[in-house]
Amino acid sequence: MAKVYIKDIGKYLGQDVSLSGWLYNKSSKGKLIFLQLRDGSGVIQCVVFKGDVSDEIFKLADSLTQESSITVGGIVKEDKRSKLGYEIGVKNLSLIQLAKDYPISPKEHGTAFLMENRHLWLRSSRQAAILKIRDEIIFAIRQYFRDNGFILVDSPILTPAASEGTSTLFETDYFDQRAYLSQSGQLYGEAAAMALGKIYCFGPTFRAEKSKTRRHLTEFWMVEPEVAFNDIDDNMDLAEDFICYIIEQVLKNRRAELEVLERDISKLENIKKPFPRISYTQAIEILNKKGNPTKWGGDIGGDEETLISENFERPVMIHRYPAAIKAFYMKRDPQDAKLALALDVIGPEGYGEIIGGSVREEDYETLLSRIKESKLPIEAFDWYLDLRKYGTVPHAGFGMGIERMVAWICGLHHVRETIAFPRMMDKIRP
Amino acid sequence: MAKVYIKDIGKYLGQDVSLSGWLYNKSSKGKLIFLQLRDGSGVIQCVVFKGDVSDEIFKLADSLTQESSITVGGIVKEDKRSKLGYEIGVKNLSLIQLAKDYPISPKEHGTAFLMENRHLWLRSSRQAAILKIRDEIIFAIRQYFRDNGFILVDSPILTPAASEGTSTLFETDYFDQRAYLSQSGQLYGEAAAMALGKIYCFGPTFRAEKSKTRRHLTEFWMVEPEVAFNDIDDNMDLAEDFICYIIEQVLKNRRAELEVLERDISKLENIKKPFPRISYTQAIEILNKKGNPTKWGGDIGGDEETLISENFERPVMIHRYPAAIKAFYMKRDPQDAKLALALDVIGPEGYGEIIGGSVREEDYETLLSRIKESKLPIEAFDWYLDLRKYGTVPHAGFGMGIERMVAWICGLHHVRETIAFPRMMDKIRP
Repeated sequence: MAKVYIKDIGKYLGQDVSLSGWLYNKSSKGKLIFLQLRDGSGVIQCVVFKGDVSDEIFKLADSLTQESSITVGGIVKEDKRSKLGYEIGVKNLSLIQLAKDYPISPKEHGTAFLMENRHLWLRSSRQAAILKIRDEIIFAIRQYFRDNGFILVDSPILTPAASEGTSTLFETDYFDQRAYLSQSGQLYGEAAAMALGKIYCFGPTFRAEKSKTRRHLTEFWMVEPEVAFNDIDDNMDLAEDFICYIIEQVLKNRRAELEVLERDISKLENIKKPFPRISYTQAIEILNKKGNPTKWGGDIGGDEETLISENFERPVMIHRYPAAIKAFYMKRDPQDAKLALALDVIGPEGYGEIIGGSVREEDYETLLSRIKESKLPIEAFDWYLDLRKYGTVPHAGFGMGIERMVAWICGLHHVRETIAFPRMMDKIRP
Repeated sequence: MAKVYIKDIGKYLGQDVSLSGWLYNKSSKGKLIFLQLRDGSGVIQCVVFKGDVSDEIFKLADSLTQESSITVGGIVKEDKRSKLGYEIGVKNLSLIQLAKDYPISPKEHGTAFLMENRHLWLRSSRQAAILKIRDEIIFAIRQYFRDNGFILVDSPILTPAASEGTSTLFETDYFDQRAYLSQSGQLYGEAAAMALGKIYCFGPTFRAEKSKTRRHLTEFWMVEPEVAFNDIDDNMDLAEDFICYIIEQVLKNRRAELEVLERDISKLENIKKPFPRISYTQAIEILNKKGNPTKWGGDIGGDEETLISENFERPVMIHRYPAAIKAFYMKRDPQDAKLALALDVIGPEGYGEIIGGSVREEDYETLLSRIKESKLPIEAFDWYLDLRKYGTVPHAGFGMGIERMVAWICGLHHVRETIAFPRMMDKIRP
């Protein structure tokens, strides 16, 4: 008898199979017991008919509790009423472990309780669907870069210096030196782009921010492409094409999971090129027209992002920000030195910033004076400055936060469900 | 004129193209200057003939230094003598930046110097080849798991407890609590396997080990599959199939890079199923026959691994170790309680352990008493014990160190070249 996974069950129609997994739900009606079995790849209804099995097996089926581990043997039948299209006519059933008092019952639980039991909460259909979509998004990212000639470069997590100040850094002792957990792989990515042309970094990044918003984790994954010879328009073209590819792949391969989440799929199907491209100045005009008082030079925060995104059904790309509110390494606009060639991509439906990037300053003297102006320790940037000494070239890149992307695609209000074991200011367990 | 990458040059035979990149090398012969241009995707010879270009361009070509950044315009010609098969007949040349005193000249440098200039060293053909093979290995890993129904689960880096003691942990302050950098995603992976059936974790892991061997980094990437219902034989089948797939993909897609490294490719072509499977007891017999004095119960260290690997041309799988020298979570062999159902895979050619894994203890009481015996803090493992309370099932998995795998496939003596910015006890910069 073939040992199979539920997702492959269609290949075994009419055959006897063996399935191992956990009881997700149970109901009964006279001589019939309906076991909803989950094995991680899917959920299938296993029908135990009293006339088909021994008394022991029928009793066992009747005694099963939520999350008990079992092996079911039976025949694969068509079942047009179910989403899966198949069910199992049970012939055999064996118990691995009877679960007692599984804490997460089908009734509603508070988020705090579910987060404490995150290691078990992952077993719910909804959480499993999110993790599968996350997996799909991450694979799509890697496939996209592979198809487009990028090389993965794993930037270090333990770093000797901070690119943007030390106030939000996690610090550790590194054999009697200080080391900090990386907030971005960008500076290393720039070095690698000078070696390999087109690269991407993709790893966990850390911010010790004392904030408890629905958009922040202290540990989050970021993908950061960096391309030698790209300008601001190339950077926008890349961001747009990249986002469209990810959405396409999720729609193609994880539609069932989007349905589990009751995501409005039409909103995702709408995400097509071209995305609107507006300057920061235009963004401020939009805000002011809507009654938001942000002045030119001010920050576009979460509320402002939501206001702007209401005007568009697609992600909106905002470019050319006031240099004063952007990082030291961003190149100034040759047309207007007040502006940095920065780019943010704001997700629709109020999901906020999903991409932030820029053209990088490639001139040695300019970059050096920026580092001095920003009062950053020059000795920490000696190697970074080297990139401007030895064959400097124009280049650009951006970072995309994976959890923000998962939240948007899945339609989740809070980023805490976008990763298996989220880390927040007040959350480091389990 | 098309802006193209060197790797795509064959598509433009007979056409005028524009290439941007860095001068890798230069030579001249009378009225000819040969520029070796690299753009990250490859290296191509650009031939400047005095009769074809203006005096200014010929002078400029003659003045170019190593790693100067340039844009070359010209016609794509066949060149059967070169590996690439093509060269450029230069018509135009423009300088982006003349590099002065690039520190890494073609002459030999010491490793310490090269490591200090790692951000520039990456530009060498050899280092670029290693990074491209690393990229290929990592993509193959992800493709393998995708093709075989595994879901990626990103386990947390910041963790509240250590699975195997605290002496080699990096520690950080986490909002007035203590947190440690993860040494393994396994425990989290087990929780996820109970939710999703087949999963893999893949991320950076950390060991604050005070050792300076050629096989150790303090920060290294590890991939860790975990499969519900797998036993020790399934675990070995998976490890074997997985390794073969990775080697196959590298041989298929990165042969040119293996040749740059002068790797003996025949040794890799030899890596085919089945791999020899020997018990720990048999491994000790092999060692003793070779004069190595390790007694039953002793550790199989680096030297012993090399001795054993000499007997085989393929990776050798050693299973069933003395329980006393293995971790608390490993399941005992039902046939012999002295043994743990552990598995190590030793690479050929002396590359040492590339995989370590086991069947996990799935019985609640047994696991609880192991945690107590090992004097680990029970409260740190409450959630892990929950996995044995609520529908426990047999399961197994393993971890593969990426840098060890890259070292073996590339034929590198030291792991420091297997990652862009290695972290070692005495190395945290650049």
